[in-house]
Amino acid sequence: MDFSSFLVSLGTSFVIFLVLMLVFAWLSSNPGNHVIYYPNRILKGLDPTVGSRTRSPFAWIKEALSSSEKDVISMSGVDSAVYFVFLSTVLGIFVLSAVVLLPVLIPVAATDDGIKNAKKNDTLSVGTFNELDRLSMGNVNLGSNRLWAFLLATYWVSFVAYYLTWKAYNHISALRAEALMTPEVKAEQFAIVVRDIPPVPQGQTRKEQVDSFFRKIYPDTFYRSMIVTDNKEVNKLWEELEGYKRKLERSEAAFAASKTEAKPEGTKPMHKTGFLGLIGEKVDSIEFYSQKINELVRNLESEQKTTLREKQKNAAFVFFNNRATAASAAQNLHAKIVDKWTILAAPEPRQLIWPNLYIDFIQRQVRQYVVYVIVALMIFFYMIPIGIISAITTLNNLTKLLPFLKPVVNINAIKIVLEAYLPQLALIIFLAVLPNLLLLLSKSEGIPSEGHAERAASGKYFYFTVLNVFLGVTLGGALFKTFKDIQKDPNSLVPLLASSLPGSATFFLTFVALKFFVGYGLELSRIVPLIIFHLKKKFLCKCEADVKDAWTPGDFGYGTRIPGDLLIFTIGLCYSIMTPLIIPFSVIYFGLGWLILRNQALKVYVPAYETYGRIWPHIFNRIIASLLLYQLTMFGFFGVKKFFYAPILIPLPIISLIFAFICHTKFYRAFADTALEVTCNELKEVPNMEQVFRSFVPPSLSSEKVDDDQFEDARSQASRTGSFA
Amino acid sequence: MDFSSFLVSLGTSFVIFLVLMLVFAWLSSNPGNHVIYYPNRILKGLDPTVGSRTRSPFAWIKEALSSSEKDVISMSGVDSAVYFVFLSTVLGIFVLSAVVLLPVLIPVAATDDGIKNAKKNDTLSVGTFNELDRLSMGNVNLGSNRLWAFLLATYWVSFVAYYLTWKAYNHISALRAEALMTPEVKAEQFAIVVRDIPPVPQGQTRKEQVDSFFRKIYPDTFYRSMIVTDNKEVNKLWEELEGYKRKLERSEAAFAASKTEAKPEGTKPMHKTGFLGLIGEKVDSIEFYSQKINELVRNLESEQKTTLREKQKNAAFVFFNNRATAASAAQNLHAKIVDKWTILAAPEPRQLIWPNLYIDFIQRQVRQYVVYVIVALMIFFYMIPIGIISAITTLNNLTKLLPFLKPVVNINAIKIVLEAYLPQLALIIFLAVLPNLLLLLSKSEGIPSEGHAERAASGKYFYFTVLNVFLGVTLGGALFKTFKDIQKDPNSLVPLLASSLPGSATFFLTFVALKFFVGYGLELSRIVPLIIFHLKKKFLCKCEADVKDAWTPGDFGYGTRIPGDLLIFTIGLCYSIMTPLIIPFSVIYFGLGWLILRNQALKVYVPAYETYGRIWPHIFNRIIASLLLYQLTMFGFFGVKKFFYAPILIPLPIISLIFAFICHTKFYRAFADTALEVTCNELKEVPNMEQVFRSFVPPSLSSEKVDDDQFEDARSQASRTGSFA
Repeated sequence: MDFSSFLVSLGTSFVIFLVLMLVFAWLSSNPGNHVIYYPNRILKGLDPTVGSRTRSPFAWIKEALSSSEKDVISMSGVDSAVYFVFLSTVLGIFVLSAVVLLPVLIPVAATDDGIKNAKKNDTLSVGTFNELDRLSMGNVNLGSNRLWAFLLATYWVSFVAYYLTWKAYNHISALRAEALMTPEVKAEQFAIVVRDIPPVPQGQTRKEQVDSFFRKIYPDTFYRSMIVTDNKEVNKLWEELEGYKRKLERSEAAFAASKTEAKPEGTKPMHKTGFLGLIGEKVDSIEFYSQKINELVRNLESEQKTTLREKQKNAAFVFFNNRATAASAAQNLHAKIVDKWTILAAPEPRQLIWPNLYIDFIQRQVRQYVVYVIVALMIFFYMIPIGIISAITTLNNLTKLLPFLKPVVNINAIKIVLEAYLPQLALIIFLAVLPNLLLLLSKSEGIPSEGHAERAASGKYFYFTVLNVFLGVTLGGALFKTFKDIQKDPNSLVPLLASSLPGSATFFLTFVALKFFVGYGLELSRIVPLIIFHLKKKFLCKCEADVKDAWTPGDFGYGTRIPGDLLIFTIGLCYSIMTPLIIPFSVIYFGLGWLILRNQALKVYVPAYETYGRIWPHIFNRIIASLLLYQLTMFGFFGVKKFFYAPILIPLPIISLIFAFICHTKFYRAFADTALEVTCNELKEVPNMEQVFRSFVPPSLSSEKVDDDQFEDARSQASRTGSFA
Repeated sequence: MDFSSFLVSLGTSFVIFLVLMLVFAWLSSNPGNHVIYYPNRILKGLDPTVGSRTRSPFAWIKEALSSSEKDVISMSGVDSAVYFVFLSTVLGIFVLSAVVLLPVLIPVAATDDGIKNAKKNDTLSVGTFNELDRLSMGNVNLGSNRLWAFLLATYWVSFVAYYLTWKAYNHISALRAEALMTPEVKAEQFAIVVRDIPPVPQGQTRKEQVDSFFRKIYPDTFYRSMIVTDNKEVNKLWEELEGYKRKLERSEAAFAASKTEAKPEGTKPMHKTGFLGLIGEKVDSIEFYSQKINELVRNLESEQKTTLREKQKNAAFVFFNNRATAASAAQNLHAKIVDKWTILAAPEPRQLIWPNLYIDFIQRQVRQYVVYVIVALMIFFYMIPIGIISAITTLNNLTKLLPFLKPVVNINAIKIVLEAYLPQLALIIFLAVLPNLLLLLSKSEGIPSEGHAERAASGKYFYFTVLNVFLGVTLGGALFKTFKDIQKDPNSLVPLLASSLPGSATFFLTFVALKFFVGYGLELSRIVPLIIFHLKKKFLCKCEADVKDAWTPGDFGYGTRIPGDLLIFTIGLCYSIMTPLIIPFSVIYFGLGWLILRNQALKVYVPAYETYGRIWPHIFNRIIASLLLYQLTMFGFFGVKKFFYAPILIPLPIISLIFAFICHTKFYRAFADTALEVTCNELKEVPNMEQVFRSFVPPSLSSEKVDDDQFEDARSQASRTGSFA
């Protein structure tokens, strides 16, 4: 890519960004679109547009800038606040680097003549060089004393990163502690999850077993327990029931709509009961659905009873009547054999993954390692599944598998297009599916909460993108050419990486610019959700609930958002010394990101769960990984530059590791466990324990009529008399 | 060493053993020696010799064999019981190996002709071969199919080891749980150690700070706290006082002794106050000492006050009025910053290392790593300090440093002897000093209890002996000869080790035999302590307390005993396949050891502390390390034997690691922490909390007159008024 095409691409992105900004300003002022641009405020029952109606189209910028961390926490939770700390930390790293690097390194590089010399001596063979390269380290002569400036800059960037991540860790620790300390009653702070309960002893029910175990240890603070059940059946019935309820609602809405017109008595909506409503008997919809609902309610009730009675598993929730005991219990070893009665602080009820609660200890361990191996294989050999998919999706195979496609495929024009695009399509589909695949894999590790599973998936995705996008693009073909050299001497990987990096600098500059101009433009303008919403509203929504479902926003999607940001961070860091020009781009990416996402956090996204900042240690580890990659790359690059003093960089990765270790020792445990100092704070009110307990009952089991204890007592009675008989 | 000299050495050792057994039988029946042979029973107030006086001289064997684990625990504590489980586990491994290996491998080896062939082809260059070697794997031809038997035997021994260590871990877990569950009140189960307390806030005393922190978290169960003080001064005064008390006692005894003779009024003992009682004023001893004691008691009291008031440190003991809370508190995170308010389950008061309690968190970490580095350097380059010592202790240097030695050294005969022995002497002194040096190093890590420090020292000593004794002897000069080859290819270390091993087989056979015949003979007969006791009694002891001090036995000395046993285990294991003849020797070592040490545990040694089996995970890790060494060595040796199927052994080390990981996950935490299930058992009586508290007050501070709380209250009053002013 030469300089002019770089500018063209930059300009195009910028124009798109401007257009999207204007589109946003115009669309968001239309009250009909408020549900798309202010859903978080609407769902919280607030006035969508703060202040007067005749606000400036750029008022959101002022609002975002003037919002405090407290506002973010109250509108979007602690996790969002932590995400902004992350953004501002990374922004700070780039700004502080820019302050020193831009005025120093660019002049030092520009006034040298390394490229000219290289051209003269014809030692320059790889890569195309252009004006941009004159401003980069590539323009410094081999072994020149000017490299000292770059070497010191490498240290400067590292220490800036240490300082700011340290501050961030400290700040987030305090945020987390404060959030856990609030006097509001949070159900999950009173509960623990108990797993791997040993088999029920003779003459006891599961509930009695759990109760007697915990009552003995916590005689004063134990409140009650709830046995985890296998809810597969009951969930299915409940979902079916909910489906019919929605259908009934729609029929009633249609009936009501028909009434208001010419015919005051209305037309009763009818439908056919067969496949897709196309065949079968024609019935009165309202009557039919009401009948179905009655039937299902009965089925559900009996299934609820069976579930509570017979599908009890070896896991339970235990509730305590104060927070400190629950926090303490979650950290304690309870049984003398570690893999029995294992305890976990309860996650929020809404993010529980029930089926994972009753997976065995051993199975969890095995699953975890199996998943790690699978993911490692996927990261290193991700071409293989794509290859397999491509192989299956070649035209010949497709026509064999799906013979009815044959006539279509045989048209020549279509054939050519398909043959050209099928492999790329396979790649695109694979990459699109990947985050969900990783989430699925993380969940199948046996992780019991959505938040934790998303964290785990996010970590996997980070390594995937860094290895495949960043290193993949950089090393590209070079790696395969010199594969034999690497086999001979694995240490040659670092200089190879270092020498391939400069060639991709312009590519990544464009990549970052595209990401922030187009990516954040789309993010702010929400064109796609808007179109989908209006389409759905027009053609699919038949009642109020349907409309609400159509506009209800998702959450931030940290699972892909954070790895994406970290990829930009890694790229920015690795190029910061080599091509300091990348720093302003990184600054814009994180600055603009902070601004636009602040708006989205305050007005759009609704968090799906709250983990009180537990994502941070993961982000921190990835930041350290990026730092290490950066330091190793720079070490290699100084070697390529034949700089005699390159070994002065050797202490850097060691310092990074020590720094990470110290942070881990000092802060980490407060993220894994809850400090008692924090939970012993006074509560605003005496907790309503019945309500705390109820909030953990899944909706499919919480019927007004069913009182689980009643049944459990009955059962315990039965089994006791059984054992006496 | 040829076969006949091997037999001679074996015979000599056996004769020494027999003599020592007879000496034991004769001496132990003499009531005057009971304090040496039955001190544990005497100190526990039991009749020294169980049963009748006219017992057979070998009754101890029957007693040892018939003693149960409960007897051991009641006489010598859980740690001793764990040590016997270790001995019997290792014994079991060798017995079960012998059952298969001896009848199979020895005939397989003996009927081949590898040595003859090797001699014929002149490929045999290293090592001397004798009759013993005909019974070992060395006699099997290279690449022969007979090696299959040895390969399968390698697996057999490994699986026997897994099975028995698993059983041992399970058993010891139960032992530990049972010991912690006893209804007896143990002071340390009610206390925790708090370290890294943040600076005292304005207007509070340290005690108020600690009390309010814990009272808030444990409102119902907090009993009281005790601030750790710097006791250096007060300890010095107290020891001085105790010394004078002893001297007074001696003088009084001397006075009493003089009375009973011709002169009924007796002679008052006198002594000179100057250097060693040789110069200075002559005074009446009783009067002088009484006066000194009065003086010191006053000094001590005022120093106690100062210590309690002004030498408070940032550590404290916190007492709870039930065991479960203390156990739970020790496992919980209390402060939101992990390196503040760090908690530790309190060790027994008697094994506390006070000065280590108030070392900072960061300093502890740094010290730990510094010590690790020092020990690693010592293990790998232990010749260097010895070299330095040797250099200093050459005659020329010695005469320079200590000129008064010159006339002695210049005598020719002495000069020759000294020149020959000084370096060896340096080595012997270094090896003798080593365990204490390692203990000192472990203590300077900041470890707060004797038991833990001894465990740490024991681990270090194990690696030292295995690396320097076992590998040192085996590789010996060979390593230096081929040092360049290893530098070129580090992987060649394993085959090198493997090919040097057979040469040292006879050496180790003799070594093991010497260890058990002479070592255990001396152990049982207690010749050395007996002689020392009688000498002391005759010449040094002047009062009853002196006599008791002279016979009071030590403890088992796990710090050196366990590494010694593990060295024999490692040797036995590594040679078990190569030279199966070593197995009976190992069996005798551990069998005889079990028997003789059982006697010592029941009758002689008095444990200095009790850790409830916390040594076991360390032993377990060392067993795994030995197993890995064995498996790697065997893999290398099959390679040397040019056996094509040697790679079949590759899974073994992996299995070992997985096995260790599973055991660690399943059992370890119950050793690091106390399971709540265990502590929530009922107590025999309501604990006397005052007594629990008092037991943690060091003797130098526990004067009847000093009530620390009184002073602390006074001080808190003062500081409060101060802050109000």
